Amino acid sequence: MARVLTPRAEDYPRWYQDLVAKAELADNGPVRGTMVIRPAGYAIWERMQAEMDARIKAAGAQNAYFPLFIPESYLRREAQHVEGFSPELAVVTHGGGKQLAEPVVVRPTSETVIGEFMAKWVSSYRDLPLLLNQWANVVRWELRPRLFLRTSEFLWQEGHTAHADEADARGYARKILHEVYEDFMVSVLGIPVVVGRKTARERFAGATNTLTLEAMTGDGKALQMGTSHELGQNFARAFDISYLSAQGRQEHAWTTSWGSSTRMLGGLVMVHGDDAGLRVPPRLAPVQALVTVVKAGDGVAEAAAKLRDALRDAGVRVGLDDRVDTPFGRRAVDAELKGYPVRVEVGPRDLAAGGVVLVRRVDGGKTPVPVGEVVPSVLAALEADQQALYDEALAFRERHTVDAGSLAEGVEAAGSGWARVPWAAVGAEGEAKANEVGVTVRCLVRPDGSVPAAEDEPDLVAVLARSY
Amino acid sequence: MARVLTPRAEDYPRWYQDLVAKAELADNGPVRGTMVIRPAGYAIWERMQAEMDARIKAAGAQNAYFPLFIPESYLRREAQHVEGFSPELAVVTHGGGKQLAEPVVVRPTSETVIGEFMAKWVSSYRDLPLLLNQWANVVRWELRPRLFLRTSEFLWQEGHTAHADEADARGYARKILHEVYEDFMVSVLGIPVVVGRKTARERFAGATNTLTLEAMTGDGKALQMGTSHELGQNFARAFDISYLSAQGRQEHAWTTSWGSSTRMLGGLVMVHGDDAGLRVPPRLAPVQALVTVVKAGDGVAEAAAKLRDALRDAGVRVGLDDRVDTPFGRRAVDAELKGYPVRVEVGPRDLAAGGVVLVRRVDGGKTPVPVGEVVPSVLAALEADQQALYDEALAFRERHTVDAGSLAEGVEAAGSGWARVPWAAVGAEGEAKANEVGVTVRCLVRPDGSVPAAEDEPDLVAVLARSY
Repeated sequence: MARVLTPRAEDYPRWYQDLVAKAELADNGPVRGTMVIRPAGYAIWERMQAEMDARIKAAGAQNAYFPLFIPESYLRREAQHVEGFSPELAVVTHGGGKQLAEPVVVRPTSETVIGEFMAKWVSSYRDLPLLLNQWANVVRWELRPRLFLRTSEFLWQEGHTAHADEADARGYARKILHEVYEDFMVSVLGIPVVVGRKTARERFAGATNTLTLEAMTGDGKALQMGTSHELGQNFARAFDISYLSAQGRQEHAWTTSWGSSTRMLGGLVMVHGDDAGLRVPPRLAPVQALVTVVKAGDGVAEAAAKLRDALRDAGVRVGLDDRVDTPFGRRAVDAELKGYPVRVEVGPRDLAAGGVVLVRRVDGGKTPVPVGEVVPSVLAALEADQQALYDEALAFRERHTVDAGSLAEGVEAAGSGWARVPWAAVGAEGEAKANEVGVTVRCLVRPDGSVPAAEDEPDLVAVLARSY
Repeated sequence: MARVLTPRAEDYPRWYQDLVAKAELADNGPVRGTMVIRPAGYAIWERMQAEMDARIKAAGAQNAYFPLFIPESYLRREAQHVEGFSPELAVVTHGGGKQLAEPVVVRPTSETVIGEFMAKWVSSYRDLPLLLNQWANVVRWELRPRLFLRTSEFLWQEGHTAHADEADARGYARKILHEVYEDFMVSVLGIPVVVGRKTARERFAGATNTLTLEAMTGDGKALQMGTSHELGQNFARAFDISYLSAQGRQEHAWTTSWGSSTRMLGGLVMVHGDDAGLRVPPRLAPVQALVTVVKAGDGVAEAAAKLRDALRDAGVRVGLDDRVDTPFGRRAVDAELKGYPVRVEVGPRDLAAGGVVLVRRVDGGKTPVPVGEVVPSVLAALEADQQALYDEALAFRERHTVDAGSLAEGVEAAGSGWARVPWAAVGAEGEAKANEVGVTVRCLVRPDGSVPAAEDEPDLVAVLARSY
């Protein structure tokens, strides 16, 4: 068979680009760095949104929507924030045919404008915590764009919360980190993530603490999949988010923010993709089982439609490919590219013998199955393959992670994977040195893998890697 | 009781503004004309999205996402389109700290950029119809903004489709009009709409035909709730969306576009709101029944929680208000403002006698109900009140619609409601005259209320009104 994608081993970036194009996930937009998310890609994003949104609501946050345009002056109110985002801003200078009195920026993130409204809405301790989230597009001008991973415009959710005290804010940033992000990534995306604390150097602009979830891509690099920030009282002071406490004192609130984006689609490709295309984990997949008519024949179309209905009734998200005027081989290649977890191939010959063929995308395995056993077989395959993808990604990460004793060893190992190095052997100075050769400290973790409460805890481990 | 809102009869625009603020639906954003949609408003929008999205998918369209930024030159390719939108554009001139070589506009709508990609994706008649939809924000600079009704940025869905021939495009524009928009507005929003055809003067910039759905607001004006356009081959020619036909000829496609927006939230307020606040139709309501603890007492909290669970198990979207430290009266006023269809008031005295009080928002009716009958009573009330709101709005519209024989009579009648005038008695000239005094032809309909296929059909009726 002609090869469909550049193999990963030959040229990983090219493989990624090929896959995104041929699986029809996305295209480059006409303005540099922008992206068109095609139906096949958007359907996956919608499933991500649905799963995340349910977890965000279960964590008590409410959705709202804040404006795309932010007065330039808002960003300047928090010194580190404006410094971090200024180089990436898109600026609107004309509106309605006139030059604007004050230019407005297209939101790169919404801490400032949401801070302004939190200040209006919060007056008493009874108004806290205030737990908000929005699904929106944001713009960060990107000079070296790459579809999903770095685009000038991307889609995301950004949560913003205000709390009466530091402990409550800290607890909520952790709750989102684990109950929303980690749970979603592990149990739905099937992606093992290292959950840790960013160093001061890698923190979000304006945060006092940034927590992160990092995935290993198929080329041994790191991809930041989501972050949850404690903002201390920085934004509360800049926007005067204050409240009257139960004790009758006027106090500044403590705020958090947290985000995850269409970048996760890039992560999905890079963690689960193989040389034949995407592999979508069953729990995420918009189409979990594709019933495919191999070719026309006696009762074949009817049998396929029946199986489609039976699977749907069993709660499976199912599609039907009955385009028999397109060669079967081409359709099979397309199905592999798109990564449907399971295919049920219905052909005249097998059907005459009362069977169909079950094809599992995870390993390409083909099993003849009697028509009457299709539903339980598909359900079992979906369950098993969700786990199989996770296990495979975890084993890959473990094979490509090295325990190193020194910064030099760590940087060396980060050439082809991740390195775990004692933070004491790296430190802020070592971190700066590593950065010079393209290696970053992705996060700090405790020896047992849990998330540190502070950067100066003893025995912390720094995870070093090249990153996207 | 102190009045909560300015009564409609006293000052309708002020009433609207008060309601939107006090029901916590939205706030003005910091940049002129922008809007913050607060959680209570956004929850309604999410329900609108869910109901619409299901209908859009049932009509065969797939969701996708196209960039926010469009090269200025794209808009110029369709002459009428650029003329229509130029005065409303927001223009980005700087990105990433540099002046851009070509300014980009923030999308006012996406026909142009989607046209560009349709041209890439369509090559054969087998690729048609191509049925796309996106949920997105758009920007049209607004000098006289009003929350939800006219804002510089708003949220909407915009559908864009390409077809092999005119009949197929025309049929699809109609399908969306009736099966998506009209069905949603009538059966979920409970809003009677007049469905008709725009005159040439009122057409979308670049369309060959615009179909519209118009609602009557509580002050007798008209509000356009959604539109579905036939674009002929205008955009297909401008962007070269062409395909090889089954007969082997290269042909231009025929395209449509159709949209509905957060403006529908303004319509909801203006059609169903009363002097106590919003009334949300049960099928739309994010919270259909609010179980309210009147005050603390023996077993009250437990009984309320049990009722909440029983309602939820019966499929009702239910909330629980147990904030007994806030005066009951204030909470009741707030519940009226927010418009929950049904309240179940649980108080110690009634409960001791085995009962609760059912309050219906539609007419304020209060009925004592035994605890054991709460679930069926609530279900019956939700069913009946969905219909009651529709019936009330329809009766209001009929009372405020006049059949007029001449343009002069029609314009006069449009001072306080709608006028139905023979189109033959108005014509393009009469339409221009009416416009001068603030009256527009909202749409043309056939005498039997159906949608005309052409502007020059005999016996068409023009609906004249002032509008938002």
